[in-house]
Amino acid sequence: MKKKNKKVNAAILIIGNEILSGRTQDKNVTFISNWLNLNCGVTVQEVRIIPDVEKTIISNVRNLSGKFNYVFTTGGIGPTHDDITAKSIAKAFKIKYGFHKEAFKILESYYGKKKFNDGRKKMAKMPISSRLIYNPSSAAPGFVTKNVLSLPGVPSIINSMIENCKRYLIKGLKVHSKTINLFTVESNISKNLEVIQNKYQKNVDVGSYPFFRLGKIGVSVVFRSTSKKKLVEVNKKILSFAKTKKIKILKLN
Amino acid sequence: MKKKNKKVNAAILIIGNEILSGRTQDKNVTFISNWLNLNCGVTVQEVRIIPDVEKTIISNVRNLSGKFNYVFTTGGIGPTHDDITAKSIAKAFKIKYGFHKEAFKILESYYGKKKFNDGRKKMAKMPISSRLIYNPSSAAPGFVTKNVLSLPGVPSIINSMIENCKRYLIKGLKVHSKTINLFTVESNISKNLEVIQNKYQKNVDVGSYPFFRLGKIGVSVVFRSTSKKKLVEVNKKILSFAKTKKIKILKLN
Repeated sequence: MKKKNKKVNAAILIIGNEILSGRTQDKNVTFISNWLNLNCGVTVQEVRIIPDVEKTIISNVRNLSGKFNYVFTTGGIGPTHDDITAKSIAKAFKIKYGFHKEAFKILESYYGKKKFNDGRKKMAKMPISSRLIYNPSSAAPGFVTKNVLSLPGVPSIINSMIENCKRYLIKGLKVHSKTINLFTVESNISKNLEVIQNKYQKNVDVGSYPFFRLGKIGVSVVFRSTSKKKLVEVNKKILSFAKTKKIKILKLN
Repeated sequence: MKKKNKKVNAAILIIGNEILSGRTQDKNVTFISNWLNLNCGVTVQEVRIIPDVEKTIISNVRNLSGKFNYVFTTGGIGPTHDDITAKSIAKAFKIKYGFHKEAFKILESYYGKKKFNDGRKKMAKMPISSRLIYNPSSAAPGFVTKNVLSLPGVPSIINSMIENCKRYLIKGLKVHSKTINLFTVESNISKNLEVIQNKYQKNVDVGSYPFFRLGKIGVSVVFRSTSKKKLVEVNKKILSFAKTKKIKILKLN
C-alpha cells in the first residue's frame, strides 16, 4: 500500500432492492467506513443505496467514480438473475464483459468441475480487465475496475475479504476523533461549539449528538481531525467551557 | 391523505457526518422505507448519505426533488452550528430563511419564555413558507418545503412523529411481498428464478438472498408486486419447481 500525505476519499454504492425496501438492515456502511479510515486513511464522503436496475447502476458508477478517489460497491455479484453489478460496471466503463480467466480457475477448483454449473460460472463473469479481490469465505472473488472496488453484499463475507482491498488503495491521512460526553442540552452549548468550530474551520470537524442515559439527557461532542495536535487544543477548549458552565462530564473509561 | 392509483416514489437523504464516518449506525432507512410502503403505498427508490456541508445538501436536495415524488431528509435540524439542513433547503429552493411564526410559538410555549434561548430559537428558523410536521417528543417541528419533508436524525423522535407526515402525502399503490425460504444454494435455482422473472418482468420483482440457519445453507426468495394476484401465481411457480427439484422448504410459522 503506497502512502500519500493528503486526504483520500471514497464513496460507497449499496446495490440492492432488499436494503431500499427496508427488508434488510444495511451493516456494510459502518463497517467499510470505519475500516477505510482506521486502516487506510480513506474518508467516506458519500453513500448511495440504489435498486438492482442496470441503467441506475451505470449512471451512479460513472458519477461517483468521477467525483471520488475510490468507489466501493456492495451487492449484486452472486449467481442469480438479479446480480447485475458486474455487467453494469462493464457497460459503465465500456469494457468487455466476459469470463475472467483467473476467477474462472478459482471457482472451478473450489466447486470441482462437476458441480461448476452455469449459475456458478456467472460469478466468473466481469469486466475482463478487472483485478481480483480474493474471497476466503465463498471463493467468488470481488473485482477492481478502474477506481471501483466491487464486493458482495453479505456482511460476513465482506468482513473476511476486506483486507484484500488494501493492495489497490493509496493510503491517505487518517482522521482521528475524540468524544466528550457532557450532561447538558445542545442549546446550552451551541454558542461555545460554534465559536470553536469557526476558529478551527479548516482543520477540525465538530459535531454534537444528543444522548439519553438512565433518564438523563446529555450531548456527545465529537471532534475529528487529521491533526492530533489540533484535537488536543479543541479538547482543552471544550473542557474549559464545561468547567465554566459547571457541566458534568460522563467518563466511560 | 388523497389516493392515487399508481406508483408513488420517494428518496431518503440522510444528512450527517456521524453516519458517514461509521460512528453511528443508521436505523432510519429501514424504518421510513417500511412505514412509507405499508402506510402510504410509497416506494423508496434511492437513498443518499451526505455530510453536513451546505453546497452538498443544496445540490442533492435539488437533484432528488426533481427525480422523485417526495424526498425525506433526516438530521441537521437541531440547535447547534452543524445543523444546517433548514438553511440549505431554503437556499436550494430560493425561499427566504427566517423565523416560522407557528414553529416559534410552539417552541416558545414548550420551553417557556425564560428558557427560550438562541440555540432553541434556531429550531424555529426554516424556509418561511414551509408547513410543519408536529413533533410530540421534543416539540421542535419538522417541515415540508415543496416536495421535501425534513425530519430530525434521532430515530425515536422520527418514530414518534412519522404519522404526522401522512397529511402531506398522496397515497400510491402498496407493494406486497412474499418470501419462500428454500434449503438450497442460489446456483441450483438461478435458472428457474430467471425464467419466472422474465415472465413477470413488468409486474413482479424477484430477489434471492442467501441465509445460514443452524449450519444449513438456504436461499430466501422474495417477490414483490403491487398485484396480489401476480404474487399468488409466482408463489405457485416457485413451489412447483421446488417440488420437482426436491428442495425442502423452511416454514417459519
